[in-house]
Amino acid sequence: MTPAIRHCFLFLLTATMSSPVPAASEESAEAVASYRRANEVSILQGFVELLGIPNVASDGKNIRRNAEYLRRQLETRGANVELWELEGAPPVVFGTLAAKGAERTLGIYVHYDGQPVDEAEWTHPPFEPTLYTASIEDGGHPRPFPEPGETIDPEWRLYARSAGDDKAPLPALFAALDALDAAGIARTSNLKFLFEGEEETGSPHLGAYFETHRDLLDVDLWLICDGPSHQSRRPQLVFGVRGITGFEITLYGATRNLHSGHYGNWAPNPALDLARLLASMKDDQGNVLVADFYDSTAPISETERAAIQALPEVDPALRRELGLAASEGNNASLAERMLLPSLNIRGFESGAVGDKSRNVIPNVATASLDIRLAKGNDPAMMLDLVEAHIRKLEYHIVREDPDAATRLAHPKLVKIRRETGYPAARTSIELPIVRQLISAADTVTEESLILMPTLGGSLPLYLFTEVLASPVVIVPIANHDNNQHAPDENLRLANLWYGIDLLGAVLTMPH
Amino acid sequence: MTPAIRHCFLFLLTATMSSPVPAASEESAEAVASYRRANEVSILQGFVELLGIPNVASDGKNIRRNAEYLRRQLETRGANVELWELEGAPPVVFGTLAAKGAERTLGIYVHYDGQPVDEAEWTHPPFEPTLYTASIEDGGHPRPFPEPGETIDPEWRLYARSAGDDKAPLPALFAALDALDAAGIARTSNLKFLFEGEEETGSPHLGAYFETHRDLLDVDLWLICDGPSHQSRRPQLVFGVRGITGFEITLYGATRNLHSGHYGNWAPNPALDLARLLASMKDDQGNVLVADFYDSTAPISETERAAIQALPEVDPALRRELGLAASEGNNASLAERMLLPSLNIRGFESGAVGDKSRNVIPNVATASLDIRLAKGNDPAMMLDLVEAHIRKLEYHIVREDPDAATRLAHPKLVKIRRETGYPAARTSIELPIVRQLISAADTVTEESLILMPTLGGSLPLYLFTEVLASPVVIVPIANHDNNQHAPDENLRLANLWYGIDLLGAVLTMPH
Repeated sequence: MTPAIRHCFLFLLTATMSSPVPAASEESAEAVASYRRANEVSILQGFVELLGIPNVASDGKNIRRNAEYLRRQLETRGANVELWELEGAPPVVFGTLAAKGAERTLGIYVHYDGQPVDEAEWTHPPFEPTLYTASIEDGGHPRPFPEPGETIDPEWRLYARSAGDDKAPLPALFAALDALDAAGIARTSNLKFLFEGEEETGSPHLGAYFETHRDLLDVDLWLICDGPSHQSRRPQLVFGVRGITGFEITLYGATRNLHSGHYGNWAPNPALDLARLLASMKDDQGNVLVADFYDSTAPISETERAAIQALPEVDPALRRELGLAASEGNNASLAERMLLPSLNIRGFESGAVGDKSRNVIPNVATASLDIRLAKGNDPAMMLDLVEAHIRKLEYHIVREDPDAATRLAHPKLVKIRRETGYPAARTSIELPIVRQLISAADTVTEESLILMPTLGGSLPLYLFTEVLASPVVIVPIANHDNNQHAPDENLRLANLWYGIDLLGAVLTMPH
Repeated sequence: MTPAIRHCFLFLLTATMSSPVPAASEESAEAVASYRRANEVSILQGFVELLGIPNVASDGKNIRRNAEYLRRQLETRGANVELWELEGAPPVVFGTLAAKGAERTLGIYVHYDGQPVDEAEWTHPPFEPTLYTASIEDGGHPRPFPEPGETIDPEWRLYARSAGDDKAPLPALFAALDALDAAGIARTSNLKFLFEGEEETGSPHLGAYFETHRDLLDVDLWLICDGPSHQSRRPQLVFGVRGITGFEITLYGATRNLHSGHYGNWAPNPALDLARLLASMKDDQGNVLVADFYDSTAPISETERAAIQALPEVDPALRRELGLAASEGNNASLAERMLLPSLNIRGFESGAVGDKSRNVIPNVATASLDIRLAKGNDPAMMLDLVEAHIRKLEYHIVREDPDAATRLAHPKLVKIRRETGYPAARTSIELPIVRQLISAADTVTEESLILMPTLGGSLPLYLFTEVLASPVVIVPIANHDNNQHAPDENLRLANLWYGIDLLGAVLTMPH
């Protein structure tokens, strides 16, 4: 952070807070940084070893190799570790590491599985880590791994599946623990480690693991070490995610496609009816017209508003890049619009267009929609509101394709297929432990730290905030251009060094 | 016609007419009927010979065999015949046959080409006519062709391509001419024959043929001998067809599909915008909301209204059959709704639905629409009205996919691809020559004759009504269940007999 920006940021942050934010220890920050500088080559070697173990969730044998590797790493550092098991699920690596005299417990979540790979699309095999002098897009070329003592350029990139998403926090954590241990600096929090092995398939068993082991999972704050830094390359802390649900609506015309000459102007057209129904749901500024749609949404706090104001202004450039003359809500900022629930048509279909179009009245029209949820919105209740809107327009709702009698009884008939979903999660920036975290992260951030009230994406963090009833903060380490989920995933080494510094500061943050 | 129905019909018809309708000659009707009864087997043989010549428009060699066959048939009956030729087009068979003392000329149009065939889908080869005791659907079975003198059941069916559409009028015409000749009864009109060879591909050269030979084509009334009888099995005369045009509209979102979490509530959704645009065009009763859309439409005359009132009531049964609880326009009758222009969504598409749906904001949305035109509507002008409607909603219209600068300059941007089209045609039921025709047809109709103001389908009859500036009436002969355009096309022999009787009456109708 430059002094001017830091001043401005702290002003914004403290303007809404009741007490000053204590600074993290300068001593420990320096100790961690110098340990890291002295051990970069061996830290990198450890990371390469981890990335060499294939980690697609469906590859049971290798997934277990990852878990065993992580168990050893934690045990080496004094933690008590167990592998939790559930039939058909990768193991969860759970560990505890007490800190003498600490009255606070931090949970550290990382997922060790990665997205499936199509080797043919990768420049190098995805589980044979390869070092580059810069990103391939920026003209980098492969180079040998450095010898001990050799200087490492922080712009080098390490290419491998999960280099960014989400193995990067693991060597950072191990190095931070080693650095503090080497310097004899005590951690200020007890730690619980929770390493999941199937996040990329939607964490289907995480809820069940939480139910089974709930008594072990009591912490003061969960750090979700996942996701990328801000697109501006500045480090960020993220305080929430959107929830999600969805539904599909199908309207019916005649029992078959009809000749538009023989029946046009007489047989109802379900594509038109669907257009009218969809149009009734949102105005031309993207505001949802479904009654009470916004009512359950948690208000935006003053601190959140200040954090949004302090964000780099990305909207105009983003509109230009995406070819958009305007964005919804009268060009209101993207970060602010994410704090409202959205109603999105992800597709619709009826009859045919282009070369395939025929002069028919289509017999069916379907639209698929998703609802991104903001904090406070219950997935089922939001679908109930949409259904109430549709009923108010005199539609009769069915759950299966209607039979002849049902068609003839109801001039306005809609099939609705409801999806399940999960709620949003959002932690208050004003909690004391969150303020302590922000302050710790700020000590290792040269540029101004970004405080992002919510990610646009959806993750089941409600399991932490609602099932475990603990606050969560997402602590990203990877570069934003890490090719997450894509071929040629990579980590910029400067981001690994940042992760070590960050976790060192977090593990020693004052109360 | 039963006497009661005939009385009612003639009351409706004459209620709006200024002078009584003369009856066609009972004498000639009896002469034609008895000739037909005496010659059914040979008439059928002639038809079989014609149906045996393959007649797909693209099959140039066989198409010409059809034309030559027809030339010989006309010449045998005293007509002057020429084959008109245009490069790449099947020939038109044009013939004239004067009637001594006649002051009136009738044009008789038939098309001798048929729809393409997929032999695998036919029960018998489509160009090997096969006689059945009834329709295949009704349990009919094949039987040998009758020997001279054998009695023919009028419910027998002759299966072959074009048995119904549209070779049936040809043997009927030849037999009617032969019958009158044999009885020494004079025709009351000069005749011009126009047999086209590419109607099923949309009559692409008919306009050019008309331009070239316009001076030969001056008649008082064109009889378009094509199409099926009414679904009620009652004979009908049809006084018009709808015209047609169409267009496709494409709306644009971002330059690529966007993650609905990262951008939902911020990036405009073209599917929503398209739904709103389509919804603005029609109300929930199917009334088009485009300004002036109905203004150019010819009003429905009192005679047409009376004819519609006299139609069999098909709407309730049709709604039941099609699974429709209601039809547009507050259940106004199908026949009346066809006299208005329609705006029909034949398809729309954006993103995906069902299993293929993804949580994205689609980057493009497209709808394809057709406009069925009523008499008076100009195709280009109707598209202009739609474009004016779209402009009034502040859309900027482009003709090609927009470049980046165009996207950024216009928050509301639409690509419109206009189709060409052609206008409707509708002949007044009140013209004296039309009343003479109705009266003639009525003498050979046992059930009440249906007067249909317009077909639902579109045909380029404007070439007759606008280019040649002559009235047209469609004179159908085939049974309604003739499997037109489909495999196992067939003609019910009773309909062939009806065609002979009908044309005999028409050729001798009084002034």
